[in-house]
Amino acid sequence: MALRTLPSLKFFNVTIPAQYVVHVEINRPEKLNAFYGPMWVELKAIFDQLSHDPDVRAILLSGAGDRAFTAGEMINLTSCLSGLDVEQAAKSNSPLSTGVPDPSRKAALLRRHILELQDVITSVARCEKPTIALLHGYTYGLGIDLSSACDMRFCAKDTKLCVKEVDIGLAADVGTLSRLPKVVGGVTSWVKDVCLSARPFSADEALKNNFVSRVVDGGKSELLKEGLETAKYLASKSPVAVQGTKNILDASWGRTIDDNLNYTAVWNMGMLQSSDVQRAMLSGLQKRTPTFEKL
Amino acid sequence: MALRTLPSLKFFNVTIPAQYVVHVEINRPEKLNAFYGPMWVELKAIFDQLSHDPDVRAILLSGAGDRAFTAGEMINLTSCLSGLDVEQAAKSNSPLSTGVPDPSRKAALLRRHILELQDVITSVARCEKPTIALLHGYTYGLGIDLSSACDMRFCAKDTKLCVKEVDIGLAADVGTLSRLPKVVGGVTSWVKDVCLSARPFSADEALKNNFVSRVVDGGKSELLKEGLETAKYLASKSPVAVQGTKNILDASWGRTIDDNLNYTAVWNMGMLQSSDVQRAMLSGLQKRTPTFEKL
Amino acid sequence: MALRTLPSLKFFNVTIPAQYVVHVEINRPEKLNAFYGPMWVELKAIFDQLSHDPDVRAILLSGAGDRAFTAGEMINLTSCLSGLDVEQAAKSNSPLSTGVPDPSRKAALLRRHILELQDVITSVARCEKPTIALLHGYTYGLGIDLSSACDMRFCAKDTKLCVKEVDIGLAADVGTLSRLPKVVGGVTSWVKDVCLSARPFSADEALKNNFVSRVVDGGKSELLKEGLETAKYLASKSPVAVQGTKNILDASWGRTIDDNLNYTAVWNMGMLQSSDVQRAMLSGLQKRTPTFEKL
Amino acid sequence: MALRTLPSLKFFNVTIPAQYVVHVEINRPEKLNAFYGPMWVELKAIFDQLSHDPDVRAILLSGAGDRAFTAGEMINLTSCLSGLDVEQAAKSNSPLSTGVPDPSRKAALLRRHILELQDVITSVARCEKPTIALLHGYTYGLGIDLSSACDMRFCAKDTKLCVKEVDIGLAADVGTLSRLPKVVGGVTSWVKDVCLSARPFSADEALKNNFVSRVVDGGKSELLKEGLETAKYLASKSPVAVQGTKNILDASWGRTIDDNLNYTAVWNMGMLQSSDVQRAMLSGLQKRTPTFEKL
Amino acid sequence: MALRTLPSLKFFNVTIPAQYVVHVEINRPEKLNAFYGPMWVELKAIFDQLSHDPDVRAILLSGAGDRAFTAGEMINLTSCLSGLDVEQAAKSNSPLSTGVPDPSRKAALLRRHILELQDVITSVARCEKPTIALLHGYTYGLGIDLSSACDMRFCAKDTKLCVKEVDIGLAADVGTLSRLPKVVGGVTSWVKDVCLSARPFSADEALKNNFVSRVVDGGKSELLKEGLETAKYLASKSPVAVQGTKNILDASWGRTIDDNLNYTAVWNMGMLQSSDVQRAMLSGLQKRTPTFEKL
Amino acid sequence: MALRTLPSLKFFNVTIPAQYVVHVEINRPEKLNAFYGPMWVELKAIFDQLSHDPDVRAILLSGAGDRAFTAGEMINLTSCLSGLDVEQAAKSNSPLSTGVPDPSRKAALLRRHILELQDVITSVARCEKPTIALLHGYTYGLGIDLSSACDMRFCAKDTKLCVKEVDIGLAADVGTLSRLPKVVGGVTSWVKDVCLSARPFSADEALKNNFVSRVVDGGKSELLKEGLETAKYLASKSPVAVQGTKNILDASWGRTIDDNLNYTAVWNMGMLQSSDVQRAMLSGLQKRTPTFEKL
Repeated sequence: MALRTLPSLKFFNVTIPAQYVVHVEINRPEKLNAFYGPMWVELKAIFDQLSHDPDVRAILLSGAGDRAFTAGEMINLTSCLSGLDVEQAAKSNSPLSTGVPDPSRKAALLRRHILELQDVITSVARCEKPTIALLHGYTYGLGIDLSSACDMRFCAKDTKLCVKEVDIGLAADVGTLSRLPKVVGGVTSWVKDVCLSARPFSADEALKNNFVSRVVDGGKSELLKEGLETAKYLASKSPVAVQGTKNILDASWGRTIDDNLNYTAVWNMGMLQSSDVQRAMLSGLQKRTPTFEKL
Repeated sequence: MALRTLPSLKFFNVTIPAQYVVHVEINRPEKLNAFYGPMWVELKAIFDQLSHDPDVRAILLSGAGDRAFTAGEMINLTSCLSGLDVEQAAKSNSPLSTGVPDPSRKAALLRRHILELQDVITSVARCEKPTIALLHGYTYGLGIDLSSACDMRFCAKDTKLCVKEVDIGLAADVGTLSRLPKVVGGVTSWVKDVCLSARPFSADEALKNNFVSRVVDGGKSELLKEGLETAKYLASKSPVAVQGTKNILDASWGRTIDDNLNYTAVWNMGMLQSSDVQRAMLSGLQKRTPTFEKL
Repeated sequence: MALRTLPSLKFFNVTIPAQYVVHVEINRPEKLNAFYGPMWVELKAIFDQLSHDPDVRAILLSGAGDRAFTAGEMINLTSCLSGLDVEQAAKSNSPLSTGVPDPSRKAALLRRHILELQDVITSVARCEKPTIALLHGYTYGLGIDLSSACDMRFCAKDTKLCVKEVDIGLAADVGTLSRLPKVVGGVTSWVKDVCLSARPFSADEALKNNFVSRVVDGGKSELLKEGLETAKYLASKSPVAVQGTKNILDASWGRTIDDNLNYTAVWNMGMLQSSDVQRAMLSGLQKRTPTFEKL
Repeated sequence: MALRTLPSLKFFNVTIPAQYVVHVEINRPEKLNAFYGPMWVELKAIFDQLSHDPDVRAILLSGAGDRAFTAGEMINLTSCLSGLDVEQAAKSNSPLSTGVPDPSRKAALLRRHILELQDVITSVARCEKPTIALLHGYTYGLGIDLSSACDMRFCAKDTKLCVKEVDIGLAADVGTLSRLPKVVGGVTSWVKDVCLSARPFSADEALKNNFVSRVVDGGKSELLKEGLETAKYLASKSPVAVQGTKNILDASWGRTIDDNLNYTAVWNMGMLQSSDVQRAMLSGLQKRTPTFEKL
Repeated sequence: MALRTLPSLKFFNVTIPAQYVVHVEINRPEKLNAFYGPMWVELKAIFDQLSHDPDVRAILLSGAGDRAFTAGEMINLTSCLSGLDVEQAAKSNSPLSTGVPDPSRKAALLRRHILELQDVITSVARCEKPTIALLHGYTYGLGIDLSSACDMRFCAKDTKLCVKEVDIGLAADVGTLSRLPKVVGGVTSWVKDVCLSARPFSADEALKNNFVSRVVDGGKSELLKEGLETAKYLASKSPVAVQGTKNILDASWGRTIDDNLNYTAVWNMGMLQSSDVQRAMLSGLQKRTPTFEKL
Repeated sequence: MALRTLPSLKFFNVTIPAQYVVHVEINRPEKLNAFYGPMWVELKAIFDQLSHDPDVRAILLSGAGDRAFTAGEMINLTSCLSGLDVEQAAKSNSPLSTGVPDPSRKAALLRRHILELQDVITSVARCEKPTIALLHGYTYGLGIDLSSACDMRFCAKDTKLCVKEVDIGLAADVGTLSRLPKVVGGVTSWVKDVCLSARPFSADEALKNNFVSRVVDGGKSELLKEGLETAKYLASKSPVAVQGTKNILDASWGRTIDDNLNYTAVWNMGMLQSSDVQRAMLSGLQKRTPTFEKL
């Protein structure tokens, strides 16, 4: 098995640790996996491709190195504020530093830039296959945006999380404020607390407040192991069922129950004719493990 | 007191354990209370009637026998996958097995069929009176759809829960995916975990993740007792207040705060003229237990 | 520093315990801080003013005296049901007691009255500055409406909470039923439980179910101290970032992710040009505490 | 060809004027086709059945006799205000005349009653097959509710239309106020004019303001003829395409473009596999008239 | 009959040309009725008061003098661009001219200012009583915002209309872009044409495109006469029915049919108990003109 | 002036007929400008680029040759059903003809394919600059999808329009059913008529029903001339104002007035600081034609 048509990548390792399971690793550990320009392009290319690749049924997303999933506060002299590499940002041609003097034109440029960055994170959320973010070490700023766009979040004991954007003078804008209420259940007192204050929080606090669903005992290797087990389990199920469930659950947010029920019926009128239903039912009766065609 | 106009029932026991309290028991214990055709018809008839019956102020919903609320995985040779009785399904004239060869026509039939089944579950959700699902043993597949449509969920220690549909090759389609985010608070990492994987979870996990609000120590009899106490308590309150609260809370989902505030004002302009307000206030001042007219 | 243009107040103490931090104290302790007519007018005036006052960056809301945040059940002979002072209500010219005989005209008057009261609570929710409700003692009825409109809720160990309205024959109508699902995450089994039954619940239950994000060990003074620390922390951050984060988070409820992402981009196209971004980034690199212009 | 399982009807004539075309005629001409109790039951039964009957591809709805589609103002001594037969209403056990003294309980009964009547009209709107209302003579009150729930409206020159409800002291409540903005395009000055004033309007005014799409020259027989031609034309097309188009167009109202595009894609993923596509394309190339399987 | 509690007004004439009918005249004809600061305050005060005044059942809104409803392009040397008096604006302390240098703080001030102006126009839209805008002469910029917030729009032959804002470098922001699609039916080619180009259009073009529902032959006096006739007609109807119809129609925009039907049922459960229903029905049967209690 | 970074195009002519005005011409006249595979890619590339190009302020979209805007019914032996070139479709690897046997997998492929095609049309709708579709001759199927995504539609006398999809067995799926109700104002009787029947309609019928806002006397050259005049007029206005107006109007659809007003305020808080406002106001006072910076 090999992934199709994926471009050569400089900042991500994409591997296949088990059948139908892909592991995407952010690979810029020397900068705490902080993002800069070309990394956004690569990230979108990866997830656009995995979304449709029939050899993929579950995706793990993690950060290389011991210290961070992504981003991180000042460490040494170089800082990687909020998951954006500040040094690189300073050199680049960012809208914030352009010579455009008129505030309305600057606003128009900023809006385009934000929409483009959001679209990258949305490519993760839109990916048809289930995604599990495996968090360890610094998971700051963009780390929250990115993992909120995944389906599940597991973390290692040592994870340090932070909705960091307020500390750099801005309201988080590539997804955290839109997706956090969805993935933790509402605009709770805790959501306001961590978003307005930019204070760090621990793995246990993340678990208690439903941001992650598991805190894995031990370090990063145990985390990867548990992530892989779950991914393999998901990959063993009917891909029609799993991917349909993901689509319908995500479509439910911000909509009424009646809307969602109708959407579910329309989705399933196309999907219940799947050969997977017969295969799954029969295997259930025969106590066999079913196999399913690619999707 | 006697319930009005309820048809004779074959698969449900409907009793009146206390004034204004009705107990609906799914009664097919030899098949783990798995549903098949005629049971759907009975279920809707029951809840449509209880919704308007002035002698009803609170409803308990439970499953007969020691082993299941409803549904259940393979046990012995007969399986009751996902709350649907597979044997019965095979014999019946289900859209999945019809001879309709054209996929679009099959899709149209499936959609009608799903909408009909959804409508049965919605008759539980739409019931004007508060409903409490009392879960024990196997609460699989349809057990989640059904209890998600109730207002509260209590469970016994031994309850084994599962969003089972992925295991039979489909995305849950009669309500779970629409209502679970509403009743547990969002499309959390845990919701994705249990819905995408179809893995079973325990009573304690259900409590921790807000699917149930109580795990009752002891077995089914303790569960029924605690359910009955709560139902009696609700039945002692103003039915205008209780049923209005239910309606407004359910209407809030998927809508903005402004929408909800206006809806509340419009609801209450009709309801605050109730004699219950005077009765309740006066009883409060006089430290008496108020009684309220039927509704 | 002094607050601008605030009218003289009879029922609220408004103080400035630290730079940019305002403390609003409900001050009618002899009636358990229960509300009546003129208090609503004062409350709105306060929050409308604080919302725009450039010397304000964080707001604490608490109740005077040892016994209540606001409202409270029967105590002694005078009762303060549901946060409304019943004695005062009886004397006043409330729509419920007017001589209007026609039910539709009574309904029209009631609607106007509810909309006016809702609008007062909404002035708290609409306040541009972050607000922290500090709850102790009786926090009944209006206490829930009011604190649900704040951004965060902390409470003392001894807090007794209750969605009391059902006990006076009505569905809560000035905000609780609209905002509770937002701030605790969904229409959970627990939300239905406490709203339909009007049963009191403890600080720990409020924490477990996400209504408050902290239960402070000790009594009211420890609570105030912890509230002040948090408020000072928030006040030290960029007001552009903090207030933008609040606005975007609140706008997210009842809307789809796509809507929210676009709204965030449009908000930030105007706000990312802030001098706060440079100040915050530079301070980060220089390990200094930034200062920000007023807003 | 014969319709399946339709009950014997007293107030409606249901005929089959051409293959796949059904004509439903309201048949109480001596009362200007005004509705009363049993007619609502029959109407819902008819449309629920036609919706799923594979021998039906287009439906005409008209009124018997020369004088009215339905309803009508005072004529002679008997009046048929707003499409409801006032005489019958007076005799019946309507919620308005019941002895329930408590306004909140009366409100609850009224709401159930309105929802039931709305549900009958909605059975017309929900019908999967295209429906054409053929209006002539008095088309007052319920005549507007009913025809707004159809897909198209044609009328004869002599049609007199009126949103009559304000004249009997109420805001129209079984559909007009919800569906009129949808079928004429917005809450226009004209919509407000005719709804707030209850003034009658002519066929030409109805055409100019998009309520009807054709005014047929001549009387009722020409109208029926033109309606039949259109129905036959619709019935000659792919039923999968026609019924899908209806569903998607109706789902579009009150939703954003993005929502609608996604819904369309999900609908068509199930429907584009239709044999109708090949048949239609091939017939197009071969300049033949295609035939399609039943749906 | 006299209006209650209306403050003394400098820029508006408020008269009572017939029972239950109020005429509000914008009175700054020497400046083409262009608005500046104090006029906004007066306008809101007037409509807030009329909304609840039981002696008011219909409202006419027009402009004093021969030349304009409000606003107007350059005429002579003084210009009144877009309904805002530019001379006054220059002298005033507008957010656009303040010394606030930071773009984000300027943005925050602008947002507050826009929300305040919008709120004034919304007080017209929110007025519970039906409103008719009578347009003549220049109806530019604010003239469109203001009249779009009314229920009906009639105009004289000589009316010159223009969505003028693009000509002063901005997207219309106090209501036109939100309300125009609602009152003309969608974001039509014509709406885009006149909004993007700021080109003037005639009374006949306004009629053809549904912005006004009548073009009155003759000049302003004929217009006022026809407006008064319509207002008197509306004022003769049940105020419960008329005001309920207005509320439900306005609530329908941007919502699904199901939402609207339910809202209608909830509104009417409180309103159908009106004495107006009996009075109207009885008068209908007895061919008398009914009279209704104040609202 | 030259357009930036546009790829070399095979099926479209992109020219600059006047300053800031771009003319995009569909250029496959020998096939009635019917689309096939590579044309979709080019179309998206063009509009993505023009959307951000600061030298573009208005866009004209037309079809090459005398016979069609795009698409066309059978003519000669080759057919171009519904804007899709059937011959090309047959040769290509379309999801409809793939060997995928499982209906659910086919559905998944179809959904991806539809979403991709929709996304191309959406790139036209999303383009930040105003777009005018100039229709002549056959404007069938895709011609409606495409022109509905433009801001304005003008057409020549001879234009023949048709929502053709029903004739090829499918519900229109790349935008017509989502955008037609928006651009003509609701799901009118006429919309249902032309969409359910696939009957052709004339330029005059398109004008009467608000699909186009102008029918130009004369043929294609007069049409192009009038389109160019309008485009030049739009291009002379403030681009900040014009593009903001477009964005806000499009955002209004499917949303409530309150939502739209708030969105407008947030948009304008960033945009009102434009130098265009001063330039436009000053030019107005000085009776000069303003010039504006690029955007």
